[in-house]
Amino acid sequence: MSDNNSFSGMRLSEIAEHLGAKLMGDGDRHITGMATLKKADAQQLSFLANPKYARDMLTTQAGAVIVSEAMSVKCPVATLVLADPYWGYARASRLFDRNPVKTQTGVHPSARVSDLAVIHPSASVGANAVIESGVHIGLRSVIGAGCVVGDRVRIGNDCLLYPHVTLYHDVEIGDNVIIQSGAVIGSDGFGFAPYQSRWEKIAQLGSVRIGHRVEIGANTTIDRGALDDTVIGNDVIIDNLVQIAHNVVIGDGTAIAGTSAVAGSTIIGRYCIIAGGVGIAGHLEIADHVHIRGMSMVSKSLKQAGSYSSGTGGAVETSVWQKNAVNFRRLSQMQNRLSVLETVLKKNGQPKTDQVSALDD
Amino acid sequence: MSDNNSFSGMRLSEIAEHLGAKLMGDGDRHITGMATLKKADAQQLSFLANPKYARDMLTTQAGAVIVSEAMSVKCPVATLVLADPYWGYARASRLFDRNPVKTQTGVHPSARVSDLAVIHPSASVGANAVIESGVHIGLRSVIGAGCVVGDRVRIGNDCLLYPHVTLYHDVEIGDNVIIQSGAVIGSDGFGFAPYQSRWEKIAQLGSVRIGHRVEIGANTTIDRGALDDTVIGNDVIIDNLVQIAHNVVIGDGTAIAGTSAVAGSTIIGRYCIIAGGVGIAGHLEIADHVHIRGMSMVSKSLKQAGSYSSGTGGAVETSVWQKNAVNFRRLSQMQNRLSVLETVLKKNGQPKTDQVSALDD
Amino acid sequence: MSDNNSFSGMRLSEIAEHLGAKLMGDGDRHITGMATLKKADAQQLSFLANPKYARDMLTTQAGAVIVSEAMSVKCPVATLVLADPYWGYARASRLFDRNPVKTQTGVHPSARVSDLAVIHPSASVGANAVIESGVHIGLRSVIGAGCVVGDRVRIGNDCLLYPHVTLYHDVEIGDNVIIQSGAVIGSDGFGFAPYQSRWEKIAQLGSVRIGHRVEIGANTTIDRGALDDTVIGNDVIIDNLVQIAHNVVIGDGTAIAGTSAVAGSTIIGRYCIIAGGVGIAGHLEIADHVHIRGMSMVSKSLKQAGSYSSGTGGAVETSVWQKNAVNFRRLSQMQNRLSVLETVLKKNGQPKTDQVSALDD
Repeated sequence: MSDNNSFSGMRLSEIAEHLGAKLMGDGDRHITGMATLKKADAQQLSFLANPKYARDMLTTQAGAVIVSEAMSVKCPVATLVLADPYWGYARASRLFDRNPVKTQTGVHPSARVSDLAVIHPSASVGANAVIESGVHIGLRSVIGAGCVVGDRVRIGNDCLLYPHVTLYHDVEIGDNVIIQSGAVIGSDGFGFAPYQSRWEKIAQLGSVRIGHRVEIGANTTIDRGALDDTVIGNDVIIDNLVQIAHNVVIGDGTAIAGTSAVAGSTIIGRYCIIAGGVGIAGHLEIADHVHIRGMSMVSKSLKQAGSYSSGTGGAVETSVWQKNAVNFRRLSQMQNRLSVLETVLKKNGQPKTDQVSALDD
Repeated sequence: MSDNNSFSGMRLSEIAEHLGAKLMGDGDRHITGMATLKKADAQQLSFLANPKYARDMLTTQAGAVIVSEAMSVKCPVATLVLADPYWGYARASRLFDRNPVKTQTGVHPSARVSDLAVIHPSASVGANAVIESGVHIGLRSVIGAGCVVGDRVRIGNDCLLYPHVTLYHDVEIGDNVIIQSGAVIGSDGFGFAPYQSRWEKIAQLGSVRIGHRVEIGANTTIDRGALDDTVIGNDVIIDNLVQIAHNVVIGDGTAIAGTSAVAGSTIIGRYCIIAGGVGIAGHLEIADHVHIRGMSMVSKSLKQAGSYSSGTGGAVETSVWQKNAVNFRRLSQMQNRLSVLETVLKKNGQPKTDQVSALDD
Repeated sequence: MSDNNSFSGMRLSEIAEHLGAKLMGDGDRHITGMATLKKADAQQLSFLANPKYARDMLTTQAGAVIVSEAMSVKCPVATLVLADPYWGYARASRLFDRNPVKTQTGVHPSARVSDLAVIHPSASVGANAVIESGVHIGLRSVIGAGCVVGDRVRIGNDCLLYPHVTLYHDVEIGDNVIIQSGAVIGSDGFGFAPYQSRWEKIAQLGSVRIGHRVEIGANTTIDRGALDDTVIGNDVIIDNLVQIAHNVVIGDGTAIAGTSAVAGSTIIGRYCIIAGGVGIAGHLEIADHVHIRGMSMVSKSLKQAGSYSSGTGGAVETSVWQKNAVNFRRLSQMQNRLSVLETVLKKNGQPKTDQVSALDD
């Protein structure tokens, strides 16, 4: 059971120290939560990171504001001055998290824990969770209610599995990993050999290895490898409803937004940003520092850092779109018509040579 | 345990009364279910809403047909006459629902219910469900087997959570809400501040508030807000595998079809129709009565009611498509070639002025 | 509890016999697992199916290689010769599967099984699973931990449900069906009648019928039918996070890759290949042997076998893409400009008649 109602907040000076921020104002003020500049009251901390909201700061009633040195002079209330206020917001936010799952302790009597599982005394297991044989769970890790942790799974220290996470057998999870509810890690990769009008299933003998400081979103699926493992590097963050197929390798620091999918055996580099709804075909290589924009389809390896896109851009009125989409289907014909016109003009001495060369750009 | 085998049906006159329909035919006939015009037998009720199926009515063997006044004269069997037969079908269908979850009663002995949860005696909790501290569950609400309801969640009256729904702490649900299995409500929004090649997690301090008469599909995910709440209005219907990111606000009456995704902080108006596979970027505003067609990407705010689309339209033979798709990558070049041709013709006195102006349309 | 550590492997001659392969080499060698040609050691079996990897075979240290007759002569180690080595790999892989769920036996004491369920003594039910009234489970079928099997569900022989599968009431499953974790079968179809600014829910009175030798991926959703059933044929394989709407019918042998979606009442033929991220609109018919390429949208029936695509092709540098995408929105205008140019040239006697006809191709 959580005990949030008794949370009396922190003194501003404590928060400043926690953030390593310069405090301008009354350090004894008690802060009990965070809110936007517009909504914060005198017991709440706010922040200014995006200049777009600078105007909101001028009239804020927050107890204090995390802000850069340059902007702090305009702030009518106490400030916590930091070079990177957005980072300050992130770090401060965790001080006010009322999340009760994190404070769960011990092994709930209704959890079904194998005698052959090794759970550190500082770890906890929620109600109705199932922990199979050979599992290792590290220091302070929290397994939420109803999770199923398969045979021989290894979970490091300070991990947090929200309720209803499923880990298949032999999955390995590093330290400080957060997995949201409904995520499935280690399910069979989609491997079949066609044979006489049927599909001969290929047993998926690999597993999934997940590094440190990884976050995996709700109802996301990560398949186990066919022979080798599927590998998620350190500091990778994956949003909800993402599909990671078997034998995919994702480099350190890469972020993947919701409903994206990566097909089998594709290797994604480090510090990539994959926006939402992206589809990446199988057996490709994506370089480090690649940014793939929303809903793009990637069908070839991307060997250079940079931003990539596909599609026709954002939605417009259907009546307008329809006229253009119809002509998409005439593009090859339009190309031919252009060529005919150019040929005709050339034959007739028009355009002149220097103009024709312009056509080749 | 359900008791469906004993369901002996309803008299046609009772159904007519329930629908407020005009009955033409024998009101004593017993009806035990519904079926299409083609398949219905003499104990089954059918309906005609789409004129496309009018021919099927002429030979139907249904016990009765819900139909409009105009079409009723051609019906060879008993009719229930209504101005809106499709609505009549919807309403009648619920009389024949054999869904046993709805008839679940009491708190199953295997459910783990906190002493500090308040569950109305008329509500029920299924096997192996987990109800945490501070939860309130209203009149006649049904919590399916294996659901996990986090601390301080409030669920209104007449709600139905199918098995394996996860509600994170502090989520608020109105009355008459249906949540299909595997849905996750209140998972952490995807909020991180980049910092020294790592991602500093932003605690998601807001929650999710869901209105009345909402339906949420299987394995759909709705993230909790970062500071403010994610808000789903009244009469919103959301299909399966939909992703709703943190701080999204969805207006009353809006419908979202399967596998669509709405990125963070986007505000969607009332009575919108979002078709399947749509992606809506973050921080946008979508007006009331906007219709977004299937698999469109929305990257700018849509400030006017109306229909919107993106993409190249429906799939065609790959060999044909390939020729056009290749030329999509030459569009900028084609545009230049067109301009050159126009310039050349202008210089040579062709086309005449009135024709050139036509080019500007 | 699994007993994998005691697995001492199989003799190569036994494997050859199991595959019906011709053995070239020492049949007494013990093989304990499988690996790629590059990584396999002397106790591991490998295979060569794709000529791309032929070079790896020349230096492999595998205990043996499954390979075609033609390639076998170049293999430096023992071979199992088969006409279809990829099929051989599939079949052999299952000999080395350490999957402990498959070896689960009996009904776990924590499972909640209705007295009115009929479970064959050779079947098993995992911890905290819930089996409702009227369920039938066939020979040797395995129900994983935490599964919920609704009233009157029928599961055939030799099925495997991984943990956290949800089957709604009245779903029917054939023999040899594998369902990965988090899949939801039988959830309500997305059926509502608009009525006075609200949505009148249509009870989904049909169910889901699944054939034999079907695989269903993690977190995939298959909705029950509105009046008739949703039907998945024999030998259908469906990947993760796929949405199958109500009343869809999928023909035998069809494969659907991850994150695809099929809208209501669409009928898909036999032996189709639906790649990842595809969206198929409702009420369509897809012929047998149709191949739909990745992320395509299908908005009309596809009545002929063959390959179909939509979209602009794979992602390119955003700066390049942008120029073309902008011009997509000018396609209708470009078409008009082309027509004006052609008209002008015609009026001026250019091009000649035979050239004009070329424009009509």
